[in-house]
Amino acid sequence: MNDHVYKIIEVVGSSTKSSDDAIQQAITKSGKSLRNLDWFEVVETRGHITDAKVAHFQVKIKIGFRLD
Amino acid sequence: MNDHVYKIIEVVGSSTKSSDDAIQQAITKSGKSLRNLDWFEVVETRGHITDAKVAHFQVKIKIGFRLD
Amino acid sequence: MNDHVYKIIEVVGSSTKSSDDAIQQAITKSGKSLRNLDWFEVVETRGHITDAKVAHFQVKIKIGFRLD
Amino acid sequence: MNDHVYKIIEVVGSSTKSSDDAIQQAITKSGKSLRNLDWFEVVETRGHITDAKVAHFQVKIKIGFRLD
Amino acid sequence: MNDHVYKIIEVVGSSTKSSDDAIQQAITKSGKSLRNLDWFEVVETRGHITDAKVAHFQVKIKIGFRLD
Amino acid sequence: MNDHVYKIIEVVGSSTKSSDDAIQQAITKSGKSLRNLDWFEVVETRGHITDAKVAHFQVKIKIGFRLD
Amino acid sequence: MNDHVYKIIEVVGSSTKSSDDAIQQAITKSGKSLRNLDWFEVVETRGHITDAKVAHFQVKIKIGFRLD
Amino acid sequence: MNDHVYKIIEVVGSSTKSSDDAIQQAITKSGKSLRNLDWFEVVETRGHITDAKVAHFQVKIKIGFRLD
Amino acid sequence: MNDHVYKIIEVVGSSTKSSDDAIQQAITKSGKSLRNLDWFEVVETRGHITDAKVAHFQVKIKIGFRLD
Amino acid sequence: MNDHVYKIIEVVGSSTKSSDDAIQQAITKSGKSLRNLDWFEVVETRGHITDAKVAHFQVKIKIGFRLD
Amino acid sequence: MNDHVYKIIEVVGSSTKSSDDAIQQAITKSGKSLRNLDWFEVVETRGHITDAKVAHFQVKIKIGFRLD
Amino acid sequence: MNDHVYKIIEVVGSSTKSSDDAIQQAITKSGKSLRNLDWFEVVETRGHITDAKVAHFQVKIKIGFRLD
Repeated sequence: MNDHVYKIIEVVGSSTKSSDDAIQQAITKSGKSLRNLDWFEVVETRGHITDAKVAHFQVKIKIGFRLD
Repeated sequence: MNDHVYKIIEVVGSSTKSSDDAIQQAITKSGKSLRNLDWFEVVETRGHITDAKVAHFQVKIKIGFRLD
Repeated sequence: MNDHVYKIIEVVGSSTKSSDDAIQQAITKSGKSLRNLDWFEVVETRGHITDAKVAHFQVKIKIGFRLD
Repeated sequence: MNDHVYKIIEVVGSSTKSSDDAIQQAITKSGKSLRNLDWFEVVETRGHITDAKVAHFQVKIKIGFRLD
Repeated sequence: MNDHVYKIIEVVGSSTKSSDDAIQQAITKSGKSLRNLDWFEVVETRGHITDAKVAHFQVKIKIGFRLD
Repeated sequence: MNDHVYKIIEVVGSSTKSSDDAIQQAITKSGKSLRNLDWFEVVETRGHITDAKVAHFQVKIKIGFRLD
Repeated sequence: MNDHVYKIIEVVGSSTKSSDDAIQQAITKSGKSLRNLDWFEVVETRGHITDAKVAHFQVKIKIGFRLD
Repeated sequence: MNDHVYKIIEVVGSSTKSSDDAIQQAITKSGKSLRNLDWFEVVETRGHITDAKVAHFQVKIKIGFRLD
Repeated sequence: MNDHVYKIIEVVGSSTKSSDDAIQQAITKSGKSLRNLDWFEVVETRGHITDAKVAHFQVKIKIGFRLD
Repeated sequence: MNDHVYKIIEVVGSSTKSSDDAIQQAITKSGKSLRNLDWFEVVETRGHITDAKVAHFQVKIKIGFRLD
Repeated sequence: MNDHVYKIIEVVGSSTKSSDDAIQQAITKSGKSLRNLDWFEVVETRGHITDAKVAHFQVKIKIGFRLD
Repeated sequence: MNDHVYKIIEVVGSSTKSSDDAIQQAITKSGKSLRNLDWFEVVETRGHITDAKVAHFQVKIKIGFRLD
C-alpha cells in the first residue's frame, strides 16, 4: 500500500478442491468486474459436509483494491 | 450456499416496532437494487432513546447475495 | 447458578416468526433429551432471505444444564 | 451525537415477554434516576429456562446519556 | 439450514499432510458416531513442530448436525 | 496432542475456595462419565457475591478428550 | 438474576497475595458504597513486577448489583 | 497503579479539531465531578461527516480513577 | 441516525501527515462517488516505516451513508 | 509507565501448584535474561489433565520491560 | 507442553504455493536462529493479488519454543 | 511485503505531544537495535492523566521487520 485510497469488499468463494482454491475462486470472480485488486485477508473458513466428507470449502475473504 | 461466489454488504435498518422489523427494513431496501439476496447475519443492535423510551431500533446486518 | 457443575451445549434453532421464537425452538428440542436446562446465551443471529423477505431466523445459542 | 460529552453505563433488563421488552425495562429503570438518555447498544442477550421454556429474557445494554 | 434444529460440537482433527486434511480427519471420526453432519467452521489452526518442520497440523472445528 | 481426534466440551465448575479449585471441580465431575480427559482452557471466570464477599467462584472451561 | 434490573460497574482490585484476593479487594471496597452486589465477572488479570517477582496482582472485574 | 482500588467509567468526548483533543474533552468534563483520574484507554474512534469532511471526532474512552 | 436505511463501506486512507488526516483522505475520496456520507468508525490504524520513520499512516475506516 | 519505551514479550509458565504460581514461573525465567521487567498481563490460562486431575496449569502472559 | 517455560514469537511467512507452505517457510526461517521450536498457531492469513491471481500467501503465526 | 519472512515485535511508545508521536517514539527506539523495520499496526492507545489533563499518550504497536 502507498498513498492511494483503497476500498475493501467482502466475498465468499467456494471450491470442492481446497480452502486455498476457494480463495482463488472468490478473487477470480471479483476480478471480472473490478480492477486493481491488491490484497486479501481471510475472515472465515467453513464448508458443507455430505456423507461425512467435505463437500466444498467456503472461505470468506476481504479484498482490497485501489481506487483510481 | 453451494459453489457460487457470494458478495457481502453491510447495511443498517431501523424500525420503531421491533429489532426483527429493523432487519426486515434493511433487507427490503437492499432488495430494491440487488437480486439474489440469500442470507443475513446480525452484527450489532442499538437504537435511540427519547423520554426513556426506545424511539427506534437500529440493527446492523451483513447480507450475502449470489453473484451471477 | 450454585455449587453444581453445569455442562454447556451449542444449538441452532430456527423460526419463521421471530428471533425470540427461534431461541424457544432450540430450547424445546433440547429439552426432549436433556433435563435441568438452566440458562441460555445468544451466540449469533442470522437467517435466510427469500424474495427480499426474512424466510426464517436462525439463532445459535449456548444452553447450560445442571449435571446431577 | 454532537459536541457534547456522553457517559455510558451498563445495565441488565429482564422481561418475560421478549428480548426487545427487556431492553425497554432497562431503559425505563435507568430513566428514573438519569436524564438525557440518548442511545443504547446491546452487549449480550441471555435468559433463564424453566421446564424447557424461556422463563425470562435478560439483555445487557450500554446506555449513553449527555452530561449537562 | 432450514427449519430444523442443529446441534454444534467442537472437534480437533490432525494430519501430517495438510490443514485441509486435518479438517477431514475430524469430520470422518465424528461421522462414525453421529448422523446428518451438515456444515463445519474452522475455529483455530495450529500444529506441532519437529526439527523445524510441521510435524502435524491440528485444526479445531465446529460441526453442525441436524437433530431428528 | 498427537494424531488422534479430540472432542471438546464446555463445563462450568464452582467452588467456595478458589478459582483454581472451581476448575478442578469441573474436571472431577466430567471425569465420572468421560475417559481420556487431556487438557483444559479457561473461557470465563465469574462468581456470586453475598454480603460483599465472594460466595463462590464459577469458572467456565473447555475440556479436550481423546476419542478412541 | 430474576426480573429485577441490574447495573454493572467496572472496578480494579489489587493484592500482594493472589489474583483471587484482588477480586475480593475490589468487591470489599465496592460494598462500602453500594448495596445488593450480586455477581462479578473477571475482565482482565495483570500486575506489577519488582525484581522478577509479582509485586501485586491487579484484577479488573465487572460487578452487577440490583437496582431497588 | 498500586494497591488502591480503581473504578472505571466509560465516556465519549468529541472535538472538531482532532481525535486526541476529543480524548482531552472527555477527561476535562469528567474531571469536573470526579477526583483522582489516573489513566484512560481508547475503546472506539468514530465521528460525523458533513459535506465529505470530518465534522467532529468522537472518541469513546475508559477512565480509571482511584477510590479514596 | 433516524429511520433511514444506511449502507456501510470499508475504505483505507493514507497520509504522510497524521492518522487523523488519513481518515479525511478516505472520506474525501469516497465523497467523489457517493452522496450523503454520514459517519465513520476507525477499524484499524497501521502504516509503513522507512528509515525508522513513519512514512505514512494508513487508517481503515467504515463509512455509513444514507440510501435515498 | 512513564515516558520510556517498553518492549513486550509473550511467555508461557507452568506450575503444578496454582495458576498464580505459573505466572511467577514465567516471570522468574524471563528475569534471568532480561532486566527491568515492569508488568504482566494474562493472555490465556490452560493446563493438562491426568486421571481427571489438573496435572499442571499453563498460563500465557505478556511481560513488559523498559528499554534502556 | 510440560513444566518448562516457553517463549512465543510472531512471524510472517509467505509462499507462492499454498497457505500451508507459508507456515513452513516461517518455521524454517525461525529454526535457523532458534532451537527447540515446539508448536505454532495461525494468527492471520492474507496475501497479495496480481492480475486477479493469488501472487503469494502470507500467513502470520505464533511459534512457541522451550527456554533451556 | 514480498516473499521474505518477517518477525513482529510489540512495543509501547509514549509522548506528551500526541498519539501519533507516541508511535514514532516506539519506532525510533526500535530502530536503534533492529534493521529493516517495514510496517506497524496500532494495538492499543492509552495514557496517564494528571490534574484532568492527558499527561502522556502511550501507544502499543506491533512492528514488522524483514529477516535477512
